[in-house]
Amino acid sequence: MKAGALELGHASKVTATVPQKGVNRGMSILDLFLRIIVIIATLGSAIAMGTTNETLPFFTQFIRFRAKYSDLPTFTFFVVANAIVSAYLVLSLGMSIFHIMRSRAQASRIALIFFDAAMMALLTAGASASAAIVYLAHKGNTKANWFPICQQYDSFCHRTSGSLVGSFIGIIIFILLVLFSAVALSRR
Amino acid sequence: MKAGALELGHASKVTATVPQKGVNRGMSILDLFLRIIVIIATLGSAIAMGTTNETLPFFTQFIRFRAKYSDLPTFTFFVVANAIVSAYLVLSLGMSIFHIMRSRAQASRIALIFFDAAMMALLTAGASASAAIVYLAHKGNTKANWFPICQQYDSFCHRTSGSLVGSFIGIIIFILLVLFSAVALSRR
Repeated sequence: MKAGALELGHASKVTATVPQKGVNRGMSILDLFLRIIVIIATLGSAIAMGTTNETLPFFTQFIRFRAKYSDLPTFTFFVVANAIVSAYLVLSLGMSIFHIMRSRAQASRIALIFFDAAMMALLTAGASASAAIVYLAHKGNTKANWFPICQQYDSFCHRTSGSLVGSFIGIIIFILLVLFSAVALSRR
Repeated sequence: MKAGALELGHASKVTATVPQKGVNRGMSILDLFLRIIVIIATLGSAIAMGTTNETLPFFTQFIRFRAKYSDLPTFTFFVVANAIVSAYLVLSLGMSIFHIMRSRAQASRIALIFFDAAMMALLTAGASASAAIVYLAHKGNTKANWFPICQQYDSFCHRTSGSLVGSFIGIIIFILLVLFSAVALSRR
């Protein structure tokens, strides 16, 4: 009688966790998919910025007018930040696949949320610092006597502005990844 | 007999959840405490930056040399971002107190993690964009012909640099808040 009651309890518990597990697995697969998108976005940003240089068609006897991304330290930081984040994401793919197989894993999910939040901060720092410099390059600042260099280096400016897009897409997806991990943690 | 077995099961469940509940309550109190620190830090940053202006002691007949934070749009964004984040945190205090009383709450914790992540991104964007401009003000950039304005506006530069500190402290604590919420979600 007692054993029967225990078995009944066990059976009802199993049926209750099955849909939960399915939802968790679905979210883990979505997590993996979104991570791959962010890898492509951040790697694209890093490469687009890292290969930016423009040589103007006119030059004097002594000077060739040339703009490279590394002329501005902020852009170098941008490339480094995007490279670190995409390297982290490649490593985190293993964790994400582990969560698809073991949807009840907890400690690894907590670690993932923590590192995701830290990497999101790094990515945001790189992207918004570069955005501030790109804005300055476009508009300049009359009060500080900073001249808008985009008037000369037009293609350089377009390239650097464009390469920010991938990072900002990455930031938005990172917020979603943190949300999904939180939902998965709450549904065990 | 059956009723007895059920009661026994219920009793053992209660004793198992009591320490969990204590840990969760402790973390909720820490959460509340950290939020108050971040409110002070971000509000301090916003006020320190928002009240920055320097008038140089020399002037010509037509021009007075004056630097205000609003001369640089990035600093205005910094003030707005810090103000929004501290307003959000004041509102989130209510949620945090609710979690101290009901340590098993889930949906509200998930919402809190999501908004915390989004607000962390906003705070990081403001702080790092301003850091990029402050760096430029200190060092200038010879390639872009941007002159380091800190050589003239010394006190202005010190004040703006200092006001970044509160924001960066806030970012680090935000990462911890996300971590604590994740741990609390996993322990129900």
